[in-house]
Amino acid sequence: MARRRQIYEGKAKILYEGPEPGTLIQYFKDDATAFNAQKKGTINGKGVLNNRISEHVFTMLGNIGVPTHFIRRLNMREQLIRQVEIVPIEVVVRNVVAGSLAKRLGIEEGTQLPRTIIEYYYKDDALGDPMVTDEHIACFGWASQDEMHDISDMAIRVNDFLTGLFAGINIRLVDFKLEFGRIWENDFSRVILADEISPDGCRLWDMTTNEKLDKDRFRRDLGGEVEAYQEVARRLGLLPEGPENAVLDMESHRKKRGQ
Amino acid sequence: MARRRQIYEGKAKILYEGPEPGTLIQYFKDDATAFNAQKKGTINGKGVLNNRISEHVFTMLGNIGVPTHFIRRLNMREQLIRQVEIVPIEVVVRNVVAGSLAKRLGIEEGTQLPRTIIEYYYKDDALGDPMVTDEHIACFGWASQDEMHDISDMAIRVNDFLTGLFAGINIRLVDFKLEFGRIWENDFSRVILADEISPDGCRLWDMTTNEKLDKDRFRRDLGGEVEAYQEVARRLGLLPEGPENAVLDMESHRKKRGQ
Repeated sequence: MARRRQIYEGKAKILYEGPEPGTLIQYFKDDATAFNAQKKGTINGKGVLNNRISEHVFTMLGNIGVPTHFIRRLNMREQLIRQVEIVPIEVVVRNVVAGSLAKRLGIEEGTQLPRTIIEYYYKDDALGDPMVTDEHIACFGWASQDEMHDISDMAIRVNDFLTGLFAGINIRLVDFKLEFGRIWENDFSRVILADEISPDGCRLWDMTTNEKLDKDRFRRDLGGEVEAYQEVARRLGLLPEGPENAVLDMESHRKKRGQ
Repeated sequence: MARRRQIYEGKAKILYEGPEPGTLIQYFKDDATAFNAQKKGTINGKGVLNNRISEHVFTMLGNIGVPTHFIRRLNMREQLIRQVEIVPIEVVVRNVVAGSLAKRLGIEEGTQLPRTIIEYYYKDDALGDPMVTDEHIACFGWASQDEMHDISDMAIRVNDFLTGLFAGINIRLVDFKLEFGRIWENDFSRVILADEISPDGCRLWDMTTNEKLDKDRFRRDLGGEVEAYQEVARRLGLLPEGPENAVLDMESHRKKRGQ
């Protein structure tokens, strides 16, 4: 297969030119980073699992009417997506106090919030993704007020849906990060959900044991990263019951066949 | 005079019980702190100047219909104010990039903002006054949404008025901090402007020379703190022309008389 043109390499994904104009191929790496890439590592098979989990979630979100960049999964590590202009804002939705919010406001991790909080962070590695507000976003033109209105509406819908989805498989959706992108249609632009939704960008706690099933296992050196991601995929019905790493076995099988 | 009961001592002011219920006496100290009180010092005569400047500004704001806690100045360092329940939010209004905003977003200090930014910081010394948004304020009930609406409206009015006031005396209002307090009247509460407005909480740059006429002289070890505060008072018409430190002379005269 001819080498495709790489458009962008991020910390956990690579974007390649897609087969048609307006499309890209999103490749999921096993690389893991934390604390603004000060900590780096690899979680074997993470890319395969996140590709499957994100496909599953984005497909369901599309079904309830949340527009997304997802078109279809191509193979174990790649999915076809719509090319968007990424809005340089990370949208964090919080239902339970954890991570930087616990530290910033001095509140114990695990405290249920009386209402959901949406936070915005300006995507800039050199600045450490500083928290910003609608005021900064409007002032510097990172997104229009209409776009921010659509983004916060979508963030709330995604939160409602995912909270239900995970509750159904005994997982507490503590918080998660979303990214949005701008597309143009007939001279008008609108924002759609982009990036991925996976245990890389969500905090997912087992409802019974409070066990962390997400990237905090890597951030906090808890071990068992792969098993946690697999458990999420398994509960979502994405892994066949039985051999735990069937998906990974399939990938190594495929590699051996030289595909 | 009988020693009054001290209600609260802050970094730059002391609050005493007032002569009537619902009133307090606000005493202006010469103490200066910066960087969440990691840096401490004294600016001789600052309290006298800030008492005068804040009296002047609050009186004018009252005249244009912004409700404030200010009742009247009592003497060189004290003013009578209404007792309020302080809303635990510092409201920062920014017209020009400076200080923490320059650092946080990597923008050169002195850059004119395309539109005014209002920021909120949760008042908590132990946490270093973290930036928060309407979302956190609503979630934790630090102020109601109606109160935040009134607060942002007042912040914009104060900014418009002060920008004009300082422009008239060749000073650029870069940014400033406001605090608000809650009062009860017939079972209803409303928020009014509280605390002080002085070079302690404003960035004031000479429009011609960009010379700093505010607490940044102390924060950044520029020297000439007293002279800067006096210059602001002088341009506001609060110091008699002539001997630069007439107000301070008056105070030392008063002290000698044992008042």
